[in-house]
Amino acid sequence: MAKRIGKCTINFDDFKPKIRGYASVCGNFEKEGPLGETFDITFDDSFLGEDSWEEAESKLQTLSSETALKKAGLNSTEIDFVFAGDLLNQCISSTFGVKKFEIPFLGQYGACSTMAQNLILSAIMVNSKLARNCLAVTSSHFCSAERQFRMPLEYGGQRPTCAQWTVTGSGALIVGQNERKILDENCYTSYISSALVGKIVDFGVVDVNNMGAAMAPAAANTIKTFLEDTCTTPKDYDLILTGDLGTVGSRLLKELLAKEGIDVLDKHNDCGLLIYDRIKQDVHSGGSGCGCSASVLCSLILQKMEKGTLKNIIFVATGALMSTTSSQQGKSIPGIAHLVNIKLMNI
Amino acid sequence: MAKRIGKCTINFDDFKPKIRGYASVCGNFEKEGPLGETFDITFDDSFLGEDSWEEAESKLQTLSSETALKKAGLNSTEIDFVFAGDLLNQCISSTFGVKKFEIPFLGQYGACSTMAQNLILSAIMVNSKLARNCLAVTSSHFCSAERQFRMPLEYGGQRPTCAQWTVTGSGALIVGQNERKILDENCYTSYISSALVGKIVDFGVVDVNNMGAAMAPAAANTIKTFLEDTCTTPKDYDLILTGDLGTVGSRLLKELLAKEGIDVLDKHNDCGLLIYDRIKQDVHSGGSGCGCSASVLCSLILQKMEKGTLKNIIFVATGALMSTTSSQQGKSIPGIAHLVNIKLMNI
Repeated sequence: MAKRIGKCTINFDDFKPKIRGYASVCGNFEKEGPLGETFDITFDDSFLGEDSWEEAESKLQTLSSETALKKAGLNSTEIDFVFAGDLLNQCISSTFGVKKFEIPFLGQYGACSTMAQNLILSAIMVNSKLARNCLAVTSSHFCSAERQFRMPLEYGGQRPTCAQWTVTGSGALIVGQNERKILDENCYTSYISSALVGKIVDFGVVDVNNMGAAMAPAAANTIKTFLEDTCTTPKDYDLILTGDLGTVGSRLLKELLAKEGIDVLDKHNDCGLLIYDRIKQDVHSGGSGCGCSASVLCSLILQKMEKGTLKNIIFVATGALMSTTSSQQGKSIPGIAHLVNIKLMNI
Repeated sequence: MAKRIGKCTINFDDFKPKIRGYASVCGNFEKEGPLGETFDITFDDSFLGEDSWEEAESKLQTLSSETALKKAGLNSTEIDFVFAGDLLNQCISSTFGVKKFEIPFLGQYGACSTMAQNLILSAIMVNSKLARNCLAVTSSHFCSAERQFRMPLEYGGQRPTCAQWTVTGSGALIVGQNERKILDENCYTSYISSALVGKIVDFGVVDVNNMGAAMAPAAANTIKTFLEDTCTTPKDYDLILTGDLGTVGSRLLKELLAKEGIDVLDKHNDCGLLIYDRIKQDVHSGGSGCGCSASVLCSLILQKMEKGTLKNIIFVATGALMSTTSSQQGKSIPGIAHLVNIKLMNI
């Protein structure tokens, strides 16, 4: 049985929910970035051949899920629950993206933190043997997000330098009881060792073009609590990977942790900083969106774990819990950060 | 440990996650309905003293949660997870409604089925001993929902007779490991005996003014699967309570089940039919919204269980997984229904 450690951490080391398959599907702009070669599928057309950007975003989820299933050697009848989420109103990318699989569905909303939330709930289901396998999937799409949250693209609005660029992408993971079918003897299987569900942290940030600043306090709180709960320090991990704090948020995170006496050393990186080339690509503070942390985790990061280059990582996806209505009404942007500790088996 | 029964059902009878507290908070229109006397708190002012309807909806969640905690004799530090959801874009009622409690937060989206989803995940957390107690809360508000999903209220649009009226209300439940502190020796404690997570069912309904028809197929599918999994029939239950199918959806549900050879007899009722007086109140097909099934469950129904009038019920909350964008783009309205079987202890 999973057990609680410290104040908030859940430990799964007894049964080790395995990552059996994963896949990432991204757009053209992501393909042109430094991780372009690591994605399973990329599209040059922002519509992915569909009639709308919303339908295109659903297709990202369908394709990432299908590819993850295929790589895991599983079919959808072997998946007992799907945890899916996205940024669109009423999470329609998820509904339309996964409905064809006919898997019992639990829609999740944690803004850009949703992939970590999905992984935590998947691990709990698998560890308690209520599921053989769970599918965890999220997506975002630059064009559907811009028109919903900001301005119509045709308006050509200027973005401040602290703004982030919503990733067109989806990541899907299969968490299961059994080990991944090893295709290559040099490949390692990873598993979810522990996790922490974050609290809502509100530092009163109101600038919708500065999500990194709104989310950094939540990330700091989650990382600090996890390190305390597990009696570990940053040097115990190969990588502390935040979701999408971008340049501004990442700097703030380090400052906030330093105040708590925590030096993340050179262990910290951020999915929003990894996915684009910020010199060649005009993304300002970096990438963001439900698909940002999901597609980076389900490409470069898990590929490195598979090869044994990374053995023990902390994945801290961060979310800004606002809507256009709450912002227009002058409300602050509360942040949240959920943490998943992923380790290699038998290392 | 919880275990799986049949194809999809989860059984919690080994450890019996208890309902330790519950509360409902509603608006004036609900107060004037047949359940008016059963709600813990009601408000005459649709703003609840706040500046906007969205803030008012958050306040519904805050108050129902506080009241449920109080009735359970617990404080927020004794709650390990909160599962919350609502209908507003990016679930802001939940974020702003529960952030003050500083409880690890997992935002849920299942449209009007969310209360059942929250209860299922709470029961899993408690049954696996990952939580001492969980808070499950949802809300909806007629005014915030109308302006987001339909028309500004000032427009005075006509509604067809199959349309439903969004409930201004919130229900909150505490699910915990220990029995409720019994205040009266004639009060019974209820617990979550089993549950079923629904699949997305899409019959191609596109009329946003006929949500009942869009959700009925999902409810029929969930009820049928549950009865098969548990080898039970409707006569084994005191009540089969659907979320908010309203008049049209309830009639369709019975037709669909009859085709499967299932006669729900006089056991069926619907939260959307119970909450308003459809003769005196101009609500057309009945109530709806995340707060509908939640406030009916957390008032009349659990009060009847407490008194022993109801001993074994099926609560099937239903959701229509659409957004204004998906409907404007001509997409269908997929439905979902999650089921929770609640029983009395020691009966």
